[in-house]
Amino acid sequence: MAAEQGPMSGFRDMLAEEMIARNGMIGTIQGVYESYGFVPLKTPALERLSTLTGKYGDEGESLMYKFKDNGGRDVAMRYDQTVPLARVVAQYGSRLPMPYKRYAVGEVWRGESPQAGRYREFTQFDADIVGTTSSIADAEVIGMMSDTMTALGAESVIRVNNRSLLDALAEKAGYTERADAMKIISTIDKVDKIGKNAVVAEISEGFGETTGQLVSDYLSVDGAPLDKLAKIRELLGGSDSTTIGADNLTEIFSMLQSSGYTEDQVVFDQSIARGLSYYTGVIYETTLKGAEELGSVCSGGRFDNLVESLGGPSLPAVGTSIGVDRLLEGLKKLGRVKEFKTTTEVLVTNFDSNDAPNYVRVARELRQAGIASEVYYEDVKLKKQLSFANRMNIPYVVLIGPDEAEKGVAVLKTLASGQQLEIAIDELPTYIAQLKANALKTNLTD
Amino acid sequence: MAAEQGPMSGFRDMLAEEMIARNGMIGTIQGVYESYGFVPLKTPALERLSTLTGKYGDEGESLMYKFKDNGGRDVAMRYDQTVPLARVVAQYGSRLPMPYKRYAVGEVWRGESPQAGRYREFTQFDADIVGTTSSIADAEVIGMMSDTMTALGAESVIRVNNRSLLDALAEKAGYTERADAMKIISTIDKVDKIGKNAVVAEISEGFGETTGQLVSDYLSVDGAPLDKLAKIRELLGGSDSTTIGADNLTEIFSMLQSSGYTEDQVVFDQSIARGLSYYTGVIYETTLKGAEELGSVCSGGRFDNLVESLGGPSLPAVGTSIGVDRLLEGLKKLGRVKEFKTTTEVLVTNFDSNDAPNYVRVARELRQAGIASEVYYEDVKLKKQLSFANRMNIPYVVLIGPDEAEKGVAVLKTLASGQQLEIAIDELPTYIAQLKANALKTNLTD
Repeated sequence: MAAEQGPMSGFRDMLAEEMIARNGMIGTIQGVYESYGFVPLKTPALERLSTLTGKYGDEGESLMYKFKDNGGRDVAMRYDQTVPLARVVAQYGSRLPMPYKRYAVGEVWRGESPQAGRYREFTQFDADIVGTTSSIADAEVIGMMSDTMTALGAESVIRVNNRSLLDALAEKAGYTERADAMKIISTIDKVDKIGKNAVVAEISEGFGETTGQLVSDYLSVDGAPLDKLAKIRELLGGSDSTTIGADNLTEIFSMLQSSGYTEDQVVFDQSIARGLSYYTGVIYETTLKGAEELGSVCSGGRFDNLVESLGGPSLPAVGTSIGVDRLLEGLKKLGRVKEFKTTTEVLVTNFDSNDAPNYVRVARELRQAGIASEVYYEDVKLKKQLSFANRMNIPYVVLIGPDEAEKGVAVLKTLASGQQLEIAIDELPTYIAQLKANALKTNLTD
Repeated sequence: MAAEQGPMSGFRDMLAEEMIARNGMIGTIQGVYESYGFVPLKTPALERLSTLTGKYGDEGESLMYKFKDNGGRDVAMRYDQTVPLARVVAQYGSRLPMPYKRYAVGEVWRGESPQAGRYREFTQFDADIVGTTSSIADAEVIGMMSDTMTALGAESVIRVNNRSLLDALAEKAGYTERADAMKIISTIDKVDKIGKNAVVAEISEGFGETTGQLVSDYLSVDGAPLDKLAKIRELLGGSDSTTIGADNLTEIFSMLQSSGYTEDQVVFDQSIARGLSYYTGVIYETTLKGAEELGSVCSGGRFDNLVESLGGPSLPAVGTSIGVDRLLEGLKKLGRVKEFKTTTEVLVTNFDSNDAPNYVRVARELRQAGIASEVYYEDVKLKKQLSFANRMNIPYVVLIGPDEAEKGVAVLKTLASGQQLEIAIDELPTYIAQLKANALKTNLTD
């Protein structure tokens, strides 16, 4: 292969700087999700084409990686995490705990036109609860999203709504046909982009002044979540849709508020619509404070008919999906991700390869004290070894020359400060562990 | 899709019991590898067919998943982690730190005939050091393998040899042609399966009594590693191959012994040959004590010509590969893997969904104290809720009925013992954290 030949267009190699940050972020998300009792699920990268086909619409179908394998079987590469979930729920049935709370993190493949920030292989991190209509599950997913962003060091705003309120709004305006309602809802969905006035104007033009006024009133309702909900109930009247949506959100916000989530963290926003038509209840999206222009990094809602429509059993579900790449981009932007070239904390230098047993032993003792360490492989000039440590941002260097070896000591050099001190080899692990702890404390109080 | 339709033959869904154990194992391996300064690398699941083709021999070629994508490009799915490494080293060149110490964990795909324990999608966990011929790197990889098995709670034996000694043996017998040497080496490789006498008989038949006797003498050399190496030097004479192999192993064993690896953990075994012809120096394989019948769970060696032959630059390399599925099977067999149905530690029961804000708050406070918790979604009969906790092996249950809520207390039930006690809700997190710590201590002293 030619030396300049990289991965294919739309695909990426991820080197250390990217992967260490990414693994850290994914580990944090997993930790939070598991603290809520979500369990991992992994499904194959390849499925029968018949399992995936007809599930993603014409556009999805055209983007899918599908082919005949060597045995002549029609197969397709994973396109999302939801259809495999529906297959698993259909297949394992009562062998799964119900409600089934699962998370799945892994690559999906779509033959999109490559463009800035859009890839043909990307990672989806989904969490879903299948098998309950309880609003406790709704609140749990929203709380978990907020806890996750906090655990990642980011301040976030989760905006929450319920599709039933939007349905109630369309009904109140006299539009009970699905197509009309969807048109009104998708216009309201644009309020972030085009502003309230433009939305009202567009509605007025398409559905008349009265409807425009109603939408204007609806979008103008303001206040704390429970107050707003009371006002919206009044505005939309006592239809079933109003009651279903407002009751659900009242329950959710009561739970979240009693648990200490603030009105900065979780907001009732009656303009949120989420484009996808499969949502049936609560819907939400999450922006990072200071990186709002990235849009939602984590969103979802309730989809009580989706599992069945995907070929699974008739089971309600609620869930959320994180775009791993976009979230990582946001955290980088906020300075919440440190890029590491290596995880090594101590480089043990090499004065003379004949003394390598000594260096290897010291490195092992450091590791046993929880300090990531490596030995420089060649006994080249010390300057070259130090310059390697500098280039890799390895914070500490241990030097054991013949004089030091004789005395049973080492010179410990802290690269950031240039500070050097002689220390007994036996005391090195404890001493460096203490330096690390102090450095951590300093970082935390920064 | 039909309800009974599972993943395709040779592919697997991994549910909670499998995945929690697997994630734990992979996390432990990552931790050890990162403590040695290995950095993660992720390459795409799909590569240009031209990158992979011609690299795996005829059999490999026939097992590869290859197809034309929607844009008419010839593509293939990742077949191992080594060819992508060679591509990355070729492509990024001096932008990589050199030596480049990388690990990669991920799926590879091969259209094997499905049979017990053989899958078309499986996980390889590789670690390689590219760019040095230093025996320190050899010793580091071997020490790391041993540390990994220890960290996983398993006792392991790593058997180490050097291909040069086997070459020297063939030369000493007068067989300098590569094909003859390979025949002798691959016969010796069978000693584990057919025994020393059968190997000697086969060699005598093919290469004469004198060669048979030499091989018999070679295989009979016994003692501690450094003694054995001295005896083998004497037996094979002072050829270049002998010196290269014996010097390398002497250095490696000096380093490993001075670092405290015992002769039980790391053994010099002159019969180890490793089938693959691309090894050029040290070679090793690892068995688990008590699960020897699984064969090697972690093996590798030095391959100084492979990166170049795969289309990369001319760079020496040494590495190891873990078969994740086989190692997990071994750990299960040794009782070193606990199967979890959930990570939840506390189930907060639901007496009345109107009190859900209270339950959700308690669960959040528990999580903030590091205790994984979930709320039961429906206010069904308590018996049903307890039976769910039992089925899922959730150790603790918190009950807050109307009387308890009034008094600000909860009943905490330990399911294993059936013990129940009333405790102030505010004190629950600290109390359960203490119970967990005690349970852990009991486990450790078992």
